[in-house]
Amino acid sequence: MYHVAVVGATGAVGQEILRLLDQRAFPIRTLRCFASLRSLGTFVPFQDKQIPIETLDCLSAPLDLIFLCAGSKISKDYADSLRRFEAIVIDLSSAFRQDPSIPLVIPEVNPHALDNHSGWICNPNCATILMLTVLFPLHAQAKLKRIVISTYQAASGAGFKAMEELKEEMKAYLDGASYTRSVIPHPYAFNLFLHNSPLQPNDYVEEELKLLYETRKILEDSSIRVAATCVRVPILRCHSESINAEFHTPLSKEEAYRLLQKAPGVQILEHREKNRFPMPIDALGKDPVFCGRIRQDLSQPNTLDLWVVGDQLLKGAALNAIQIAERLTG
Amino acid sequence: MYHVAVVGATGAVGQEILRLLDQRAFPIRTLRCFASLRSLGTFVPFQDKQIPIETLDCLSAPLDLIFLCAGSKISKDYADSLRRFEAIVIDLSSAFRQDPSIPLVIPEVNPHALDNHSGWICNPNCATILMLTVLFPLHAQAKLKRIVISTYQAASGAGFKAMEELKEEMKAYLDGASYTRSVIPHPYAFNLFLHNSPLQPNDYVEEELKLLYETRKILEDSSIRVAATCVRVPILRCHSESINAEFHTPLSKEEAYRLLQKAPGVQILEHREKNRFPMPIDALGKDPVFCGRIRQDLSQPNTLDLWVVGDQLLKGAALNAIQIAERLTG
Repeated sequence: MYHVAVVGATGAVGQEILRLLDQRAFPIRTLRCFASLRSLGTFVPFQDKQIPIETLDCLSAPLDLIFLCAGSKISKDYADSLRRFEAIVIDLSSAFRQDPSIPLVIPEVNPHALDNHSGWICNPNCATILMLTVLFPLHAQAKLKRIVISTYQAASGAGFKAMEELKEEMKAYLDGASYTRSVIPHPYAFNLFLHNSPLQPNDYVEEELKLLYETRKILEDSSIRVAATCVRVPILRCHSESINAEFHTPLSKEEAYRLLQKAPGVQILEHREKNRFPMPIDALGKDPVFCGRIRQDLSQPNTLDLWVVGDQLLKGAALNAIQIAERLTG
Repeated sequence: MYHVAVVGATGAVGQEILRLLDQRAFPIRTLRCFASLRSLGTFVPFQDKQIPIETLDCLSAPLDLIFLCAGSKISKDYADSLRRFEAIVIDLSSAFRQDPSIPLVIPEVNPHALDNHSGWICNPNCATILMLTVLFPLHAQAKLKRIVISTYQAASGAGFKAMEELKEEMKAYLDGASYTRSVIPHPYAFNLFLHNSPLQPNDYVEEELKLLYETRKILEDSSIRVAATCVRVPILRCHSESINAEFHTPLSKEEAYRLLQKAPGVQILEHREKNRFPMPIDALGKDPVFCGRIRQDLSQPNTLDLWVVGDQLLKGAALNAIQIAERLTG
C-alpha cells in the first residue's frame, strides 16, 4: 500500500489519474491532491471521500509515489524539493524527457528502461505514446527507418479550459454571437491550425520535435528519422494520426495486422465492407490505441500507411502513467 | 458573348460558379441553369434576374459553354447528349478525368493542355488542385519525386447538405439532443473520419488515388509517386493539406519561398513571430491557395514540408473551372 500524491489534481489529466487509481484499484494507503493556489479550499472527490486540495508548498512525508501533471514549469521549479522525499515521481510534463539519466517509458514498448530509474520517470508526449504503441511491434520485426506523421490533435492537449472554450466558441458561432477566447490562440469553431507550441529555429514546433527526439530515446535508436506536422483540429479529446512508416526490411500488410492483433495496448478496429475505421468517438474513454486501414504504401517499398486514434487523456497521458506506477509497484 | 449553362446550379459549387460569373464579369449572352427534377419550378438569382431552373432533359441550343457540376453519374449519363451541342463542356466531376484524350487542367499549371481539347475539359479534384497549385512552381525547378500528403478536408466536399448537417449535428450535440444524419455517414460533431469515398482493392480510397493519378496526368510525369491519406474534419468549407514533398534535386526553403512568392494563385501567409500560419478561416471565400511554414525536412535530403489551405469551393472547384473558361474565351 502506497502514499500517493497527484500534483495537478484538478486538471484534465489529473482527474483521469484519480479516476484510474480508483477504477484499477491501485493500492493506496493515503492520497493527497495538489493544485495551484486558486484551487485552495476546494475538494476533489475520490471514492467516497472528498480530498482537500493542497498547494505544493505544503508537501510533506510520507510520500511513495507522486504523479506530476502540472506542466513543465512546475516540474522544473519543484524538482529539487520533490526529489528530497525519496518518492517515485512520474512526471507527465516534458521538462526532463530528454535527460539521458531519466527513463522515458511506454510500458508496452520499453519497460526495461524502468530497471535503472533513480526516482524520477518521465511519461512521453501524448502523440508519441499513441504512435509508438502501434509502431513498436512493427519496429521489433522490421526496424523503423523513417516516419512521416501528420496529427489531428484534440483540444484536451491544452487542458480542460481549452475543451470548454472549444464548446463555448462553437456555441457562440452557431448562435451568430461573438466570443472572446482566453486559452486557445486562434479561432477554433470549425477551424484548425498548426500546433501552437513554440516555433524552433529549424521551423518545426516543439510538439513536432518531441515526436522525433522521444521516438529515438524510447526505441534506443538515434538513426530513426521522423518528419512530423502537428495540427490542432476542433475535436474535444482524442488524437488521430496519419502515419507513413518506412522500414529497413520488408513488412507486409498481413504481417503488420498479425503483429498488431496480438500487440498489447493496440486494438484493430475496422469494417472494410462499411468503409469504417477508427474515429475519435471510438477511442473516447477507452484504454487501447485504435488502428485501422493498414496499407502497403503505393509510393515506396518497405513502407506502410497506418491510421491511429487514441484517447489523449488516457493512453496518451494518465493511463500510461498509471501503467508505469503499476509496473513499479506490482 | 457566350451562351452559358450551369448544370447543378443549386449545389454548393454551382452557386459559386454563378457568383464568380457575375463577379468576374464573364461575357454572358444568355445564362441557363439546370438542376434535378426536385428543383423544377424554383429560381436562382443572378445579377438582377431570377433564372428558372430547368432539367437537363430540356437542354437545347444555342449553347457555347457548359459548366457541369452535378456529379459523376450525370456527367456520364449525359455525355453523349451534351457533346451533340458542340459547346465547350467544363466537367467538374471525376467521370472522365483519367481519359487520356480529355485535358485535365489547372490554368496556373498546365494551360497548354487546353490547346488540343475536343470540346470536353475536366476540372481536377479539389485536393489535387490545391496541392499542385503550390507544388508546381517547385516541381518546375527541382522535379518532384515523391509526395506524402495527409488532408484535412471540409464538409463542403460533400455539398451544401453536408455543410448544413455538420452545423445541425453540432447544434444538437451542444444541446445534448439526438440527431439523425442523412448525408454524412459517420458522427461529425467534434469527430473526424477517413474519407468516405469507395475503398479500392489496394486499400486506398478513391479520393486518395485521385491525388496520385491526377498529379501524374497534370504534371505529365508518370514517375511521380504519391502516398495520400484523406481525412474529413469538422470544418465547413476549406481544405488543409500537410505535404511532405521530395524532389530529385536540392531545393532550399529560401528558394521555395522565392518561387512561391511570385507563383500565380499562391499566397504565402505567415507571421512567424506570432506562430501564425494559414488556417481554414483565412482561406474562406478567397481566391488564392495559402501556404506557410515551409520547412527543410529534417528526415530526408531534397525534401520540403509545406502547409497548404484553400477554399475547396473556389480554387478547389468553381474558380478553377471559371479560369479554364476565361482562358478558352479570353
